[in-house]
Amino acid sequence: MPEPSTAPPAAEAASAQTSARPTAHAADLVVFGGTGDLSMRKLLPALYHSDRDGRLAPETRIIAMSRGGLDDADFRGKVEADVRPGLHADDAEGWDRFLGRLHHVTADVAGDARTHPGWGRLARMLAGREDVDRIFYLASPPMTFGPFCRAAHAAGLVTPRSRVVLEKPLGRDLEGARGINDEVGAIFEERQIFRIDHYLGKETVQNLLVLRFANAFLEPIWNSLWIDHVQITAAESVGTPGRRGYYDHAGALRDMVQNHLLQLLCLVAMEPPARNDRESIRDEKVKVLQALRPISGTEADRFTVRGQYAAGEVDGRAVPGYLDEPDKTPPTDASRHVETFTAIRAEVKNWRWAGVPFYLRTGKRMPYRRSEIVVQFKDVPHSIFPGGSPNRLVLRLQPSEGIHLHIMAKEPGAGDVVPRPVPLSLSFADTFRARVPEAYERLLTDVLAGNPTLFMRRDEVEAAWTWIDPIIATWESRDALPEPYAAGTSGPAAARELLGRSGRAWHEEDLP
Amino acid sequence: MPEPSTAPPAAEAASAQTSARPTAHAADLVVFGGTGDLSMRKLLPALYHSDRDGRLAPETRIIAMSRGGLDDADFRGKVEADVRPGLHADDAEGWDRFLGRLHHVTADVAGDARTHPGWGRLARMLAGREDVDRIFYLASPPMTFGPFCRAAHAAGLVTPRSRVVLEKPLGRDLEGARGINDEVGAIFEERQIFRIDHYLGKETVQNLLVLRFANAFLEPIWNSLWIDHVQITAAESVGTPGRRGYYDHAGALRDMVQNHLLQLLCLVAMEPPARNDRESIRDEKVKVLQALRPISGTEADRFTVRGQYAAGEVDGRAVPGYLDEPDKTPPTDASRHVETFTAIRAEVKNWRWAGVPFYLRTGKRMPYRRSEIVVQFKDVPHSIFPGGSPNRLVLRLQPSEGIHLHIMAKEPGAGDVVPRPVPLSLSFADTFRARVPEAYERLLTDVLAGNPTLFMRRDEVEAAWTWIDPIIATWESRDALPEPYAAGTSGPAAARELLGRSGRAWHEEDLP
Repeated sequence: MPEPSTAPPAAEAASAQTSARPTAHAADLVVFGGTGDLSMRKLLPALYHSDRDGRLAPETRIIAMSRGGLDDADFRGKVEADVRPGLHADDAEGWDRFLGRLHHVTADVAGDARTHPGWGRLARMLAGREDVDRIFYLASPPMTFGPFCRAAHAAGLVTPRSRVVLEKPLGRDLEGARGINDEVGAIFEERQIFRIDHYLGKETVQNLLVLRFANAFLEPIWNSLWIDHVQITAAESVGTPGRRGYYDHAGALRDMVQNHLLQLLCLVAMEPPARNDRESIRDEKVKVLQALRPISGTEADRFTVRGQYAAGEVDGRAVPGYLDEPDKTPPTDASRHVETFTAIRAEVKNWRWAGVPFYLRTGKRMPYRRSEIVVQFKDVPHSIFPGGSPNRLVLRLQPSEGIHLHIMAKEPGAGDVVPRPVPLSLSFADTFRARVPEAYERLLTDVLAGNPTLFMRRDEVEAAWTWIDPIIATWESRDALPEPYAAGTSGPAAARELLGRSGRAWHEEDLP
Repeated sequence: MPEPSTAPPAAEAASAQTSARPTAHAADLVVFGGTGDLSMRKLLPALYHSDRDGRLAPETRIIAMSRGGLDDADFRGKVEADVRPGLHADDAEGWDRFLGRLHHVTADVAGDARTHPGWGRLARMLAGREDVDRIFYLASPPMTFGPFCRAAHAAGLVTPRSRVVLEKPLGRDLEGARGINDEVGAIFEERQIFRIDHYLGKETVQNLLVLRFANAFLEPIWNSLWIDHVQITAAESVGTPGRRGYYDHAGALRDMVQNHLLQLLCLVAMEPPARNDRESIRDEKVKVLQALRPISGTEADRFTVRGQYAAGEVDGRAVPGYLDEPDKTPPTDASRHVETFTAIRAEVKNWRWAGVPFYLRTGKRMPYRRSEIVVQFKDVPHSIFPGGSPNRLVLRLQPSEGIHLHIMAKEPGAGDVVPRPVPLSLSFADTFRARVPEAYERLLTDVLAGNPTLFMRRDEVEAAWTWIDPIIATWESRDALPEPYAAGTSGPAAARELLGRSGRAWHEEDLP
């Protein structure tokens, strides 16, 4: 173990006590892969908004690293051209201040990084600022995580006030994830490692915590006595054109379920934490992952569904199947086997949730883009009115964030008393009339404040892979290919059957 | 006991099984006091709407009785002039059909009614229609109820298919109520007697039943474990000009609490009934009234508040105090003692509600016109977020009907997680975009259908008086006058203190 890693500085410990207090510590934010897609589309806009809202200290700098050979002026020009148009940044003074924070260092992690002149330049830029928060944001493929950390360490850049931010995917199985965690963990302490899952930065996800734990009316019914089942859906209407190289080796289960959907499941299912601090919530989440009933062998055949989209139609436009997507790489055997859709019936084996199915579903080329959590309550034990349907709580993450509680109310009129389902709705955009921040803005604010509550701890990531691996192993042991579904439909028939055999159905209703 | 009163006809029994099935039986509806204020302002408009919506059988007739000496044409002319303008009745054919149903009979109940020619005319009109539902609607003062019933019986008009509808007030104490019930009960069976409380016809009130018993999410928290207290308010901004003769001998407790507010309390507090039929709901309501903790003596001093409005200002306009209201009758000692405002801390002594105060409040000349039920939940047992406030369910009956569930949600933003109270709202007018029927429309439909669910049974009325009488007795035994409050304020200081001494406060928030 290297020089960093003493007790956390007092300021950081204090800030972590309450959730996401936006301290404006001065920081040097080094973005590795700083001219890439994620950086340009998400990180720099989020940082601009943070700056405009006063959440960046005056001395905070943003240092992009890439192999691009740009100088600071080139990089600022690129950001001016590529990022500014999407921002409506009409405050010239604010924009200039933001541009002034930007720097670029040309560097790589190949070979002996220490001899690369870019690392020397970075070291000179950071010299004398050891008391400033130093954040290494790795917006780069996971195979670079270990080499980057070693290079940064070798260049003497890892201080006690350093943090490292890791983007997904963290490996493609438990062993791979452990390898990455070991490599990064050799240089950084766990408290310095921020594994990002941008779903956790969404307002609705944080609202789920507030909804559950700042209201008295949900907790008494948040259990197997009153909840029939939970559905977690992340549907995309896009396909994977040009991404075969990545997607053939990922698939929907690794790409979406292992991280995003399981994280949402944890937040729905977790016990009330004693505190809203850096470890209490994550302690409760990991307990949920550890309580997931393992699925493998014939149970995997029964409780999981794999699909791959065939040609079809989305939004009235003909689109090709997965194997025919335009790509520089031709389809291989891996392409034929990879799932672009999966549905799983999960179970949390603990006192609260025994017997309550958690249905997870994600897919490409579905009819809509929609991420949501549906908590389906049981019917009333005894009905004195004709008709009626059970209550449902819908937490919508995409496309528009909102919370909808479906209740039964009386249809107005002097005739029969006829209960009719109506949504009590909370739309964030309508209710608060404030800009709903992008997930990355919240998460970057938390990184800068040293608050890891909304980031995945090592044991969480590994517990998730522990549950995922046997499913993948079963799939790989079977001859069958994924079941085809026409693009623009909501997945293969088996996905409907997964719920249908217990008389349930996926929530497909449109909402405001 | 007279000739009517066998088993209920089959059609009636069937219709009473489900709630308010709008059967369009042919009916003769005799309205005693048929040219009075209630008839012209409420009953005839409600009947017109019922007719327009197809809930009156073609042969149904409306026969107004009064001392007015009108013939059918006179009465139709009066309705054309006085009722039609408020109805937007632009369907000429429908309006003519409605007018064609109207008749007028001149009659009284003084002296020997049988000798009055009006009764003879009525008897001839009804002759041969014994198989038609016959409804006597007594829109007249309670001292006429007994004489009317005796006269109708003497004239041979009371058939097995007859019903009688009684308007409030049903007496001014238990003894008076029993007297009226005995007199009416000597002619009609209890199943034929419909005691109207127009609060029970309001959409929100019926929605309370649907909300409680067609949804699973409320019942588990609808008890003393989760509910801190309940508030029931019926506030009026009007005073009592020209009504001293009535009001001096009524007062807020008799005029509003004994009937409307206690009925609302029953619907909030009742146990789930086994069926939605004519007796099950009323059985549960009467159990609540019987479980009310009696209040008398020093407890009445402590748990009840009396007020009388003094001069003040309402809507920016100076208004006189109760004693100075313009009236043909000058104020008397009774005027000085009568309460125009009352607040009571009630308690339902049963397993579900032990220790949960039910605060009732009603008054004239308050700052607003508002009737609402507020169910205030307890705070979360353990808070992990800063700030926050307990959940609240508001059922608004007036001025605009609606249901509002106040929950805590996260204030959007990348900074601290700050819970903020937001209402999940169901406005009937906005949600259903249908005309919300007037209370009388629903209740008349139920009378015509023979469904007494929303009408007060004899034992309910008498149980309510049993609880009210000792409060009045205590008040009458005290020297003190009601506490004055300025018109346009929300009652005397003691009303705030009634809640304030346990750290609670009246709900004064404005809602959409």
